[in-house]
Amino acid sequence: MKGSLYIVKIGGNIIDDKKKLSSFLKDFSTIKEPKILVHGGGKIATEIAAKMQIPQQVYEGRRITDAETLKLVTMVYAGLINKNIVAALSAYGVSAIGLSGADANSVKAYKKPVDKIDFGFAGDIVAVNFEKIAKLLELGLIPVFCAVTHDGRGQLLNTNADVVASCIAGAMTAYYKSFLYYCFEKRGVLKDPDNNSSVIPEINMDVYSKLRREGKIFQGMIPKLDQAFSALQKGVKSVYILQGEDLRSSILNLRTHGTRITI
Amino acid sequence: MKGSLYIVKIGGNIIDDKKKLSSFLKDFSTIKEPKILVHGGGKIATEIAAKMQIPQQVYEGRRITDAETLKLVTMVYAGLINKNIVAALSAYGVSAIGLSGADANSVKAYKKPVDKIDFGFAGDIVAVNFEKIAKLLELGLIPVFCAVTHDGRGQLLNTNADVVASCIAGAMTAYYKSFLYYCFEKRGVLKDPDNNSSVIPEINMDVYSKLRREGKIFQGMIPKLDQAFSALQKGVKSVYILQGEDLRSSILNLRTHGTRITI
Repeated sequence: MKGSLYIVKIGGNIIDDKKKLSSFLKDFSTIKEPKILVHGGGKIATEIAAKMQIPQQVYEGRRITDAETLKLVTMVYAGLINKNIVAALSAYGVSAIGLSGADANSVKAYKKPVDKIDFGFAGDIVAVNFEKIAKLLELGLIPVFCAVTHDGRGQLLNTNADVVASCIAGAMTAYYKSFLYYCFEKRGVLKDPDNNSSVIPEINMDVYSKLRREGKIFQGMIPKLDQAFSALQKGVKSVYILQGEDLRSSILNLRTHGTRITI
Repeated sequence: MKGSLYIVKIGGNIIDDKKKLSSFLKDFSTIKEPKILVHGGGKIATEIAAKMQIPQQVYEGRRITDAETLKLVTMVYAGLINKNIVAALSAYGVSAIGLSGADANSVKAYKKPVDKIDFGFAGDIVAVNFEKIAKLLELGLIPVFCAVTHDGRGQLLNTNADVVASCIAGAMTAYYKSFLYYCFEKRGVLKDPDNNSSVIPEINMDVYSKLRREGKIFQGMIPKLDQAFSALQKGVKSVYILQGEDLRSSILNLRTHGTRITI
């Protein structure tokens, strides 16, 4: 029988807050089962872009990755954030290993085709090297992924961290029962974005379609929910969208938290 | 019988030159035996420091790593340089894995004690996790180390890349016949620093002591030579100091290159 594997994604709101991050990593370290952390960016990248005077272009909420921005993203995500998380986890007794998609050829992507807009060095994932990732887990190593991937021909690519988490969770079902947790600043998917108590406990495809038709899903949640369904379709056992502070309690089944996504 | 392992260190002069780096990595990729790459920094760090207006303090040729400089070093070494090398090696068919000392707890250090001068977040190496590094090699992964280490308590530390290479080469003798190659801009240790043809073909401890006494060793070479002898004392089979362009020919035994260090 396959063992359990927890894939946990954290976003900028946890990364930007030193205390929150430390507390989250401590919680994460208490998960006894094999686990994988995927992290996004956060404000640090924007701050450093400003210091380095790299203009940031955004189209419909998505960053355009020109050559200078790719350098920035590689420095901040794969370097600064990733290594500090790895070092912090080590202090909590976790033998973490920080990875970009180029490392161990773990996540391969191709440059987003230019359609209406050129997103630059942004990647769409084509393959996750689940065999190698499984081998690292067997060595007792806990992969910590940043959302930088590569095309296998020497080009690094900036990739959406939600997509990285979803693709890894999906691919790892070959070896594990995968459980995917999207941790963010809200308690879950909210009926009313201004009311943190209005968590929708469960969303299935039908509910999602209905809510979207009615314009009741906050724009920013759509890509995350799409990725959640995509993961489930690849065989991921369950997907939760929840607050970082609730991860530990949720995994230990102490209490139900956040929004469970089902098909 | 133990197999061979090549530990190759490259410095800034190769990293700073895109064409040189690419050609070097291609050569490196042709080494059939298990291998490890260790890279230093280069001018990019200084350039980005200037852009970010992080003042760089240097004492007797050594960088003082204050908190901002540590961030810079982590971004540039562990992020920008490391991931680009890993992606480039991947294009040459090498399944590389970029590591700081925090990753897989591979290189542990402690903060340099404050003596005359406080070097800040600079690390002296205390332990190399040779078992884990050997496991990665067994998986067919080629470690690419930057010179950022950690103290195991959450603190990253800036470390000298020559020392990282020497310590790794020394520690890996537990599993392998280690061969250490220091690649730099000159053809070897030179009698006359301005004459690239004045390579000293071999230096042993006696010769080294004599040359040092006579003030005939260029100041910048002393730490590298000290590290070379230190590696040999730990059981490393041979240490060469040579030009990056000569690595391949040297390893394939096509011709003798550079300076061989012996005890």
